[in-house]
Amino acid sequence: MRAAVYRKGDLVVDQVPEPKPADGQVLVKTLACGICGSDLHAFHHAPKMVEAIERQGGKNLMDLSGDIVFGHEFCAEILDYGPNTGRKLAVGTRVCSVPISFTAAGMQTVGYANAAPGGYGEQMVLNEALLLPVPNGLPTDQAALTEPMAVGWHAVQKANLKGDEVPVVIGCGPVGLAVIAALKLKDVRPIIAADFSPARRKLAEIMGADIVVDPATTSPYKSFLDAAAPEGYDAGNPLNILGVGPQLKQGVFFECVGVPGVIQKMFEGAQRGTRIVVVGVCMEVDRIEPFFAINKELNLQFVLGYTPDEFAQTLHYLAEGKIDGSPMVTAKVGVDGVKQAFTDLGNPEKHVKILVEPWR
Amino acid sequence: MRAAVYRKGDLVVDQVPEPKPADGQVLVKTLACGICGSDLHAFHHAPKMVEAIERQGGKNLMDLSGDIVFGHEFCAEILDYGPNTGRKLAVGTRVCSVPISFTAAGMQTVGYANAAPGGYGEQMVLNEALLLPVPNGLPTDQAALTEPMAVGWHAVQKANLKGDEVPVVIGCGPVGLAVIAALKLKDVRPIIAADFSPARRKLAEIMGADIVVDPATTSPYKSFLDAAAPEGYDAGNPLNILGVGPQLKQGVFFECVGVPGVIQKMFEGAQRGTRIVVVGVCMEVDRIEPFFAINKELNLQFVLGYTPDEFAQTLHYLAEGKIDGSPMVTAKVGVDGVKQAFTDLGNPEKHVKILVEPWR
Repeated sequence: MRAAVYRKGDLVVDQVPEPKPADGQVLVKTLACGICGSDLHAFHHAPKMVEAIERQGGKNLMDLSGDIVFGHEFCAEILDYGPNTGRKLAVGTRVCSVPISFTAAGMQTVGYANAAPGGYGEQMVLNEALLLPVPNGLPTDQAALTEPMAVGWHAVQKANLKGDEVPVVIGCGPVGLAVIAALKLKDVRPIIAADFSPARRKLAEIMGADIVVDPATTSPYKSFLDAAAPEGYDAGNPLNILGVGPQLKQGVFFECVGVPGVIQKMFEGAQRGTRIVVVGVCMEVDRIEPFFAINKELNLQFVLGYTPDEFAQTLHYLAEGKIDGSPMVTAKVGVDGVKQAFTDLGNPEKHVKILVEPWR
Repeated sequence: MRAAVYRKGDLVVDQVPEPKPADGQVLVKTLACGICGSDLHAFHHAPKMVEAIERQGGKNLMDLSGDIVFGHEFCAEILDYGPNTGRKLAVGTRVCSVPISFTAAGMQTVGYANAAPGGYGEQMVLNEALLLPVPNGLPTDQAALTEPMAVGWHAVQKANLKGDEVPVVIGCGPVGLAVIAALKLKDVRPIIAADFSPARRKLAEIMGADIVVDPATTSPYKSFLDAAAPEGYDAGNPLNILGVGPQLKQGVFFECVGVPGVIQKMFEGAQRGTRIVVVGVCMEVDRIEPFFAINKELNLQFVLGYTPDEFAQTLHYLAEGKIDGSPMVTAKVGVDGVKQAFTDLGNPEKHVKILVEPWR
């Protein structure tokens, strides 16, 4: 089959062997697959990624001397069933799945294992048990957003919002926008969002943010204070710390940037007791001053991915129109456009989510 | 009055002006005051501490060109009442108080402000509203431990333990021991504790730890696994992450060391979903790799101090014998012994908590 292949540090278009469904697995045709920031990171820093996985005692399934087909944000169509399958869904049914492939040999992440090619190729192998038919005639492009939108939904679930809190989203790339969509669905208001890019600020508004600021001119911490201070709140009252007088609403900050320095900036800007949900994936060494977080009794919840339930919920929210990811899709390319798309995604004014259509 | 005084980077014994109670305040005689790790830090790094406070937008009340009398872990005796006081407690009553002094001019931390001399001096000024009489004839030495033990009680309160979790205390200095005492009181078992020092491991046992390890020979992460794995748990099963099969009990790790590198070590050693409560006060820049915490969805709760309620509870637990801090007191000195005590506390084999008795 034809695929955009990660090969020895480059991205090339080539023919690769078609994957074969094992027991309980299904062969699918990739209809659309989003390019994720993690794919960009893997492209630029694959050896570091492998090293980090191994240092964590994880099982690395990426042999960088061989071919890897990225792509884990997909909508696909059932082509054929492998052995020992129930065949409940008709061939031709459009499906989504968490990007996990498991066989007797173990579990692999689709798109991050040589043996589990992802959605930048014409075909994939998925597990029947994890397939979710696309409901309500939801367009394929939207269904392919299930995975990135589930990341936002999961982050908001883990944030465990109580309804009287003020959420602030730092960074409005795909992750931040997914968080905003999830917050909107939860109806936690006002949603404050910050990004240096005018195009992304515009998108943040479209996705549901109520207050959108350019951190170059307006501090999101100041915006938070304005939104979180009840009538009669006196920021200068030293007895606030003892619970005397009107108290600030609780801030829940979502770190959706994922580069070094952002967490420390939050330590410095946040109010006492702020909860920080770290959704952006910083793959580099970061530098913090714990004293700041200690003094303010901050809480950091690191999050990743989603549960299978949250993934299924997200697909249904998309199908019911409760989440609309369509403004995020800024381009579609064939496999021969993937490498250029990786470059183009560096420009936040032009692109958020580019979908790959390997059948083109 | 006579006091051990922080003066221009040194600790000297000298006469300093007696503090004068303002409206609502009380003059007390210091009976005993513990030396805290924060005092040692302030002694060695006062300018850095002031800078950190100022960078946080906090109000620094330590003018390093003037005298500061440290000491915020005290038991005292009422000598005299200032203006506008209720005088409910008789002169001579032994009292504890959160180390806060507030006047019309604002709030200060007793022992960390030039204008609020702490317990390394013969007399202090406290607020009547915050005084807690020492109950049940609790010995003075024990009452003076209210503050450090409250730090442990608060940390365990913030940890929000649910009863089926396995707590692990990393570092068995005064902070770690206070956490162990609080965990014992909560009856969350088994309590795992780790420290490189044989003397501190012995104390950890005395304070209530069930499993005490020397991290030089036994990984506390391995000890946790042994304690947290239910029957039939298969560490190698990749489907664990999907909630399939018996699951590990939740780990709650208490970081009670407070030096750079410990948080990252925890990121590396912890199981998925571990909650880390950071109680040790690291005043330096630290280095973390967020990727580890993200991949495992770790939670970091930074904590500091205690609420006034928690402080009062701790005093009562001490008085009722539910917390026994006496094994922690390793020496008592007069003001002229403070400087040597600051050095002696560097040896974990010999000392944990040294009390200052300024009346000597």
